[in-house]
Amino acid sequence: MYNFEYQNPVKIIFGKGEISKVGANIPKGSKILLTYGGGSIFKNGVYDQVKASIKDFEVIEFGGIEPNPHYETLMKAVDMVKKENITFLLSVGGGSVIDGTKFIAAAACFKHGDPWNILAKRAPVDDAILHGAVLTLPATGSEMNSGAVVTRIETKEKLSFMSPKVMPLFSILDPEVIFSLPEKQVANGIVDAFVHVIEQYLTFPVDSPIQDRFAESILKTLIEEGPKVLANRTDYNAAANFMWSATMALNGLIGAGVPQDWATHMIGHELTAYHGIDHARTLAIVLPGVMHIKREQKKDKILQLGERVWGVLDGTDDERINETILKTTKFFESVGIPTKLPDYSVTSETIDTICTRFKNRGYKVGEKANIGPNEIRLILEDRL
Amino acid sequence: MYNFEYQNPVKIIFGKGEISKVGANIPKGSKILLTYGGGSIFKNGVYDQVKASIKDFEVIEFGGIEPNPHYETLMKAVDMVKKENITFLLSVGGGSVIDGTKFIAAAACFKHGDPWNILAKRAPVDDAILHGAVLTLPATGSEMNSGAVVTRIETKEKLSFMSPKVMPLFSILDPEVIFSLPEKQVANGIVDAFVHVIEQYLTFPVDSPIQDRFAESILKTLIEEGPKVLANRTDYNAAANFMWSATMALNGLIGAGVPQDWATHMIGHELTAYHGIDHARTLAIVLPGVMHIKREQKKDKILQLGERVWGVLDGTDDERINETILKTTKFFESVGIPTKLPDYSVTSETIDTICTRFKNRGYKVGEKANIGPNEIRLILEDRL
Repeated sequence: MYNFEYQNPVKIIFGKGEISKVGANIPKGSKILLTYGGGSIFKNGVYDQVKASIKDFEVIEFGGIEPNPHYETLMKAVDMVKKENITFLLSVGGGSVIDGTKFIAAAACFKHGDPWNILAKRAPVDDAILHGAVLTLPATGSEMNSGAVVTRIETKEKLSFMSPKVMPLFSILDPEVIFSLPEKQVANGIVDAFVHVIEQYLTFPVDSPIQDRFAESILKTLIEEGPKVLANRTDYNAAANFMWSATMALNGLIGAGVPQDWATHMIGHELTAYHGIDHARTLAIVLPGVMHIKREQKKDKILQLGERVWGVLDGTDDERINETILKTTKFFESVGIPTKLPDYSVTSETIDTICTRFKNRGYKVGEKANIGPNEIRLILEDRL
Repeated sequence: MYNFEYQNPVKIIFGKGEISKVGANIPKGSKILLTYGGGSIFKNGVYDQVKASIKDFEVIEFGGIEPNPHYETLMKAVDMVKKENITFLLSVGGGSVIDGTKFIAAAACFKHGDPWNILAKRAPVDDAILHGAVLTLPATGSEMNSGAVVTRIETKEKLSFMSPKVMPLFSILDPEVIFSLPEKQVANGIVDAFVHVIEQYLTFPVDSPIQDRFAESILKTLIEEGPKVLANRTDYNAAANFMWSATMALNGLIGAGVPQDWATHMIGHELTAYHGIDHARTLAIVLPGVMHIKREQKKDKILQLGERVWGVLDGTDDERINETILKTTKFFESVGIPTKLPDYSVTSETIDTICTRFKNRGYKVGEKANIGPNEIRLILEDRL
């Protein structure tokens, strides 16, 4: 395996009833900005649980953080943080709310001009407001990592940044939040977590059996538990296993010491930026194309995925690769997520636009940095 | 799965050549106490690498920390820390040196009487000197956890304590340190890591597929990579995979949210305390007895271990349990570790002594706290 550094100090507080511990985990005397999204936390009781636990703190609220959180919205929160001398951010929501709050935390302390540069120019994050999270939707892994993705509506750009400074101080994971989630959000979460693992696994072998087997463990668990959650939203064990899988899928552990891909995400972000397609759905569209177009480069790992996760044992290498791509695609479809561009009314015109954008950016993506405009065209044409 | 809290802030710096980063990871201006064991670090070049990296710090050395570090020895280091106003402890060694250094770190700050109470009465650790580690022997996992075991020679007591305050700030894991290890230490490390996983896995099912599969991943990797390391000590990939397995075996992750046993360790500690048998060897002796005597209570998980790790698929439940115990025992023996008490010249007299000691302590061990003097007698008699 490669040399690596790994550090993840996020305190995970996991299990039913644990939201009541949020107040005890926030530094005494903090002035809190409570961030949330569209308001589902008012319906599922999470808001009430959180408020009861932080009743001894001074709290200001900032709701309305969108899916694919908008830079424009988040900057309003940054102003509020500065004006109100906020000392702690408490995000209550899914990956978008947590990601958005990470950006607020960094932008409020940014001293080198326009905070947009944190995203556009990867300007270093010198400092950030302390932040804790109450997760309401297992999917992105943001609750236990250093990354965030933010969208600028004005320019249709969806960009990411990473900094250890924005890792949550703690994250509370109560699987019961899943009980009231709409089917679509659960399905998105399953696919999102699945593809997070794939991006750190489906590259080329570097003799890393622990990382490989941990990755396969998460994939197998998502394949088993995901459908159980969809079939019975109040199956606590299935909810808990799904939730822990999604966190482990992107907390840095399985990616330590191994090559990583992320081409599916980079291409998928453009589909969200131009068409507003849910993040997870863009991954379900793009991944089969990446597997197909990069089948030679990824051959050893696709065969390993087929054998160890999907039980694909027979046939020539090519047949086994096809079968593995098919099983992966069918899994996405089985949880209700279509995998072709026309399913989302996206035409070849968008392919041109995305290829032009990557051409202008001038860099290539993927574990060997060899996926540029030409390969992206092939990948997306495979999904027409 | 059970509710749990999990937090592990230790920074892992992994790979060949990484020991040179030790100085850069120690707070500037620290006055360092460099702790080590019997002096192997002078022969394998680790001492020179460390010293070159920390040349800008004021450093005092404390060598001679024994395997199963002695309270009596460690208290001399505590005096030195106080007298010299040490602000950072740098342990360079295996689990014994790191464990000993954790105790030094806590004892030097202990304000409630005799520091022995940290072990004997589990007195809370309010504070500890900052501590970093350079690991020279993969085995105990101490480099990435909060626990330590210390032996008091005077009373033949081997006791443990745990505190987040003594977790290393960083640990450097360079697999090349394995190249010069004696066969016996490698074999001990393999068995130690293996049994750490078993203690957190071989209990009863609580529907925790991530934890189970991660545990099985580590066991399978140890079974594969351990013999490779023994056969060719300079196989870097095998060394790296063995080293990462041993760390992951006891950093809290696979034990989060599941029942844990630790009876094998508790009984094994007594064999070390009375006969000086290497820690790992005591585990290899005791575990098969625990599996046999608790075969009904552990039935589901022994069958799962047999099926998923050892490929034991055929026969009645009882036959499969026997075969799984046999394969586990044979694995220990295959790396050169005998598993019976007479192999270490231990007689039934010691069994009486150990049972009396547990009787006097008055508590029972194991995942259901139902292993007391009577069960311990059966377990150890099984190993005669």
